Amino acid sequence: MSQMPPQPVDLMIEARWVVPVEPHGVVLDNHAVAVDDGRIVAVLPMAEARAAYAPRERVLLSEHVLIPGLVNSHTHNPMTLLRGLADDLPLMVWLQQHIWPAEAKVLGPEFVRDGVELAVAEMLRGGTTCANENYFFPDVIGATYRKLGFRAVVGLPVIEFPTAWAKSRDEYFERASEVYDSFRGDVLISTAFAPHAPYTVSDESFERIRVLSDQLDIPVHLHTHETAHEVEDEKARSGLRPFQRLQKLGLVNDRLIAVHMTQLTDGEIAACAAAGVSVVHCPESNLKLASGFCPAEKLRAAGVNLALGTDGCASNNDLDMFGEMRTAALLAKAVAGDAAAFDAAFALRAATLNGAKAVGLEARIGSIEVGKQADFAAVRLSDLETQPLFHVISQLVYATGRHQVSDVWIAGKRKLAARELVGMDTAAILERTRAWRERIASA
Amino acid sequence: MSQMPPQPVDLMIEARWVVPVEPHGVVLDNHAVAVDDGRIVAVLPMAEARAAYAPRERVLLSEHVLIPGLVNSHTHNPMTLLRGLADDLPLMVWLQQHIWPAEAKVLGPEFVRDGVELAVAEMLRGGTTCANENYFFPDVIGATYRKLGFRAVVGLPVIEFPTAWAKSRDEYFERASEVYDSFRGDVLISTAFAPHAPYTVSDESFERIRVLSDQLDIPVHLHTHETAHEVEDEKARSGLRPFQRLQKLGLVNDRLIAVHMTQLTDGEIAACAAAGVSVVHCPESNLKLASGFCPAEKLRAAGVNLALGTDGCASNNDLDMFGEMRTAALLAKAVAGDAAAFDAAFALRAATLNGAKAVGLEARIGSIEVGKQADFAAVRLSDLETQPLFHVISQLVYATGRHQVSDVWIAGKRKLAARELVGMDTAAILERTRAWRERIASA
Repeated sequence: MSQMPPQPVDLMIEARWVVPVEPHGVVLDNHAVAVDDGRIVAVLPMAEARAAYAPRERVLLSEHVLIPGLVNSHTHNPMTLLRGLADDLPLMVWLQQHIWPAEAKVLGPEFVRDGVELAVAEMLRGGTTCANENYFFPDVIGATYRKLGFRAVVGLPVIEFPTAWAKSRDEYFERASEVYDSFRGDVLISTAFAPHAPYTVSDESFERIRVLSDQLDIPVHLHTHETAHEVEDEKARSGLRPFQRLQKLGLVNDRLIAVHMTQLTDGEIAACAAAGVSVVHCPESNLKLASGFCPAEKLRAAGVNLALGTDGCASNNDLDMFGEMRTAALLAKAVAGDAAAFDAAFALRAATLNGAKAVGLEARIGSIEVGKQADFAAVRLSDLETQPLFHVISQLVYATGRHQVSDVWIAGKRKLAARELVGMDTAAILERTRAWRERIASA
Repeated sequence: MSQMPPQPVDLMIEARWVVPVEPHGVVLDNHAVAVDDGRIVAVLPMAEARAAYAPRERVLLSEHVLIPGLVNSHTHNPMTLLRGLADDLPLMVWLQQHIWPAEAKVLGPEFVRDGVELAVAEMLRGGTTCANENYFFPDVIGATYRKLGFRAVVGLPVIEFPTAWAKSRDEYFERASEVYDSFRGDVLISTAFAPHAPYTVSDESFERIRVLSDQLDIPVHLHTHETAHEVEDEKARSGLRPFQRLQKLGLVNDRLIAVHMTQLTDGEIAACAAAGVSVVHCPESNLKLASGFCPAEKLRAAGVNLALGTDGCASNNDLDMFGEMRTAALLAKAVAGDAAAFDAAFALRAATLNGAKAVGLEARIGSIEVGKQADFAAVRLSDLETQPLFHVISQLVYATGRHQVSDVWIAGKRKLAARELVGMDTAAILERTRAWRERIASA
C-alpha cells in the first residue's frame, strides 16, 4: 500500500465517529469514508484513509458522528401540507370531517408536488435520505423526488373507489404500469405496489398485484392490522383476519411491506418471520390515532425485519425519524414490560438497514459499507443537550434532536451543508406552503 | 385612557401570538405583554399596549408565540451529568451496577453544583423556567439555582439510609430544617419535603413530615406507585397498597405531589381528585424503565391536577418539556383508546399552570396573567417544520422542537436571547461536563 500513489476520489468525509450499522452496534473512532462516483469506496481509520486517497473534496466533522441516511419506511408526504389541520379527534371525525374534505378540495398534481418539496426540505434537515411513499399521483411524486435528488420508493396506489388519480380498477393498474415503466432503471426512484388496505382492496385487485409484483419483482406496500376494529370487521366480512386473507391470496412473502400491525397473534408474528415479511412500525401515528400498540419487541425477537415510519404529517405531525427511533425504543420497553427491550442499536438499525431491506434496497443503501450508495447524515454531538457523552449510539437515539443533523449526502451529493439546504429555495417553499395554508383553511 | 401619558414599564414583549394558558385554550393574536419589576402588568392587543405603556425595553417577536415558562414538575437535575451512562438495562441492573456505583464515586457538592448548572443551561434552551428538584445537597442545589437566577422548588430529602448528605433520620430532618430556613422568603427558591418513596421511608419519618409540612405549609414530593412491583411489595409488607398507607398516615392531601402513579384503581383516582393531590406524570421515564402506563386521561377526566416531569437525565435522557408534552399527549390517547383524549391545550396546561399548582406556586407562575411573575418562553413558529400553521397550540405540542425556543425570561430578566444563554459561560459548562465524564467513565 505504501508504494501506491494516493487514489483520486470525489469526496472524503473524516468524522470523529462513524456508526456503519453493519457490523451491528459498532462505533468507529476517528474514521474516514471515501466516496467516488456516488458510492462508498472505503471506510478506514483516518490516518490510513489520508495516505490511501486523494479526495477532490474533504469534509472534516470533528464533533460529529456519521451515520447512514435514515429511511422513512412509511409516509404520505404530500400530506405534509395538512400538518396540524385537525388534531385530537376520533379517527372517523378526523378523516370524514377534516382530512377527506381538505383532500377533495386540493388533491392534484400541484398539491402533491408542493407537499413533497416541503417534505424533502424537512426530511433533509432531519437526516432522512429515503422515503417509502404512499399517495396519489405517483408520477408527480417520483418526478419531484428525482428533480430534488432525493431517494424514494414511490407507491403505485390501488383502491376500489374513484379518486382524482384514477376512476376504475383498470385505470389504477394502467396508470401503475405507466409509472413503473417511467422510473425503471432510475438511480434514485423505484416503485412498489401500494394497495391501500385489505378493507379497501378486493381479492381481484390483490390477485393482479400478486402476479404483477412477482413479474416485476417490486414490493407490495400496504396498511394492515392497524386497529382492532379493522381486524374484527374483516372477520365479520370474510370470516378471516386480514393477515389470513393475505396469506390465502399469496401475498404473505418477502415482498410484503406490512404497515402498522398493532394487532398480531404469536402465530402471525412467527408467520411473518418465516415468510420474510417486513413490518413497518409507526409508533407515533399509532399513539396519536389510538390505533393500538405494535408488539415491536416480539417482532424483533422473532427475527422479523422491523422498519420504522413516521406515517403522514396529518397524523404525527412531523417527519422526524430521530423522534420515531426514540419513541419506538421507549414504547417497546413499556409494551414488553422490559427495560432492556428494543435497544438503541436496534432502533438505529430499524431506521436504516431494516428500512432499506423492507423496500428492497438493502444491497444499495442502509449502512456505510464499501460498494453501497453514499447516503449519509452527519450529527453534531457537541451541543450541551448531548453532553456528557458516554455511548454514541445511545446518545443518538435517546438524547439527540434532529436539528443536530448538520450535513446530509445522497448518492455522494451534498444536500444539506451546515444546516443549509443545497439547491433548494427555502423562502419559496415557505411562500408556497403559506399559500396552500390559506386555500385549505378557507375550505 | 387617551388623556393619560404612557406609563413607564421595564419591558414590553410584542408577539405574533400569546397563549396565556389561562383562560384555557385561548390564542391571542398580535398581543403585547407589559412587565414591570419582574411582574406582568398588562396583556393587551399590541396597538393598545403601545398607547398605554412606555417600555424601557421593547422586544418584537413577529414570528413567535409567547407562552408561560414551562414547569418541570419532577427532576433530579444533578444527574444530568449521568445522561446516557447506562441505557437499555433492567431497572435493578441499571441502579445497582451503574447509577449507584457512579453516584457513590462522585456524589458531593461539586457534582451537584455542576450538574445543576448544565441542567439550567439545557432547560433554558428548551423553554423551562421552573424545576421541582429532588436530589441530595439541596443547600447546594438551591444556591446554584439562586446564583443562576432560575426558579426552583428544592426537595429536602428523607430516606432511611445514610448518604453523603446525611447519616441518620435525625440528621436528614435537621438538615432539611436548615435548608428550609435558608431559602425562606426567597423570590426564586422555595422548598418541599422529598421523602424518596414509601418503600424507603418509615412511618415515623412520614409522620414527622406530615406534621412539619402542615406547620411550614410546604409540599411533599414523593415517588409512588411507579411500578406494579412496588405496589405488590408494599402489600406483602404492610397489607396495604402504598396509597392506602399514605392515606392512613394523613399524607393524602393537597400538599402531596405524587410522582409516577402508573398503578391506580378508579377509587384511588377519585380519592386523588377529592383530596386535591397533584400527580406528576413522567411518561418518557415510565416508558424507558418499563414502569407501566399512567392513566393520564382518566386522571384528567376526574379533575386531578396533573403535571408533567422529565424525571432525571439518567432515565429519559433529556430535560425536554416539549418532548414530554408531546409524548404525554400521544401516549394518553393510546392508553385511553381514544384519539380525542388529552388534547394539546391540556398538555400545555399540564406543563405550565398545573405544574405551578403542584408545587404551590399557582398564584405566582404558570400562566400569563396580570400580577404573576414574568416567566416566559418565546417559540419561533416560522421554521418549515412548523409550517403550514393551522392551530398554534396544536403546533406547539405536536410539531415544535425545543430548539425553536428563541428567548426566555424569568421574573422579567432575559435568560436566553436569540438562543444565546445570558450570563452563563457555555464553554466553561461544557469543559466541566467533559471533566466529569472522564471521572465517571473511569469508575
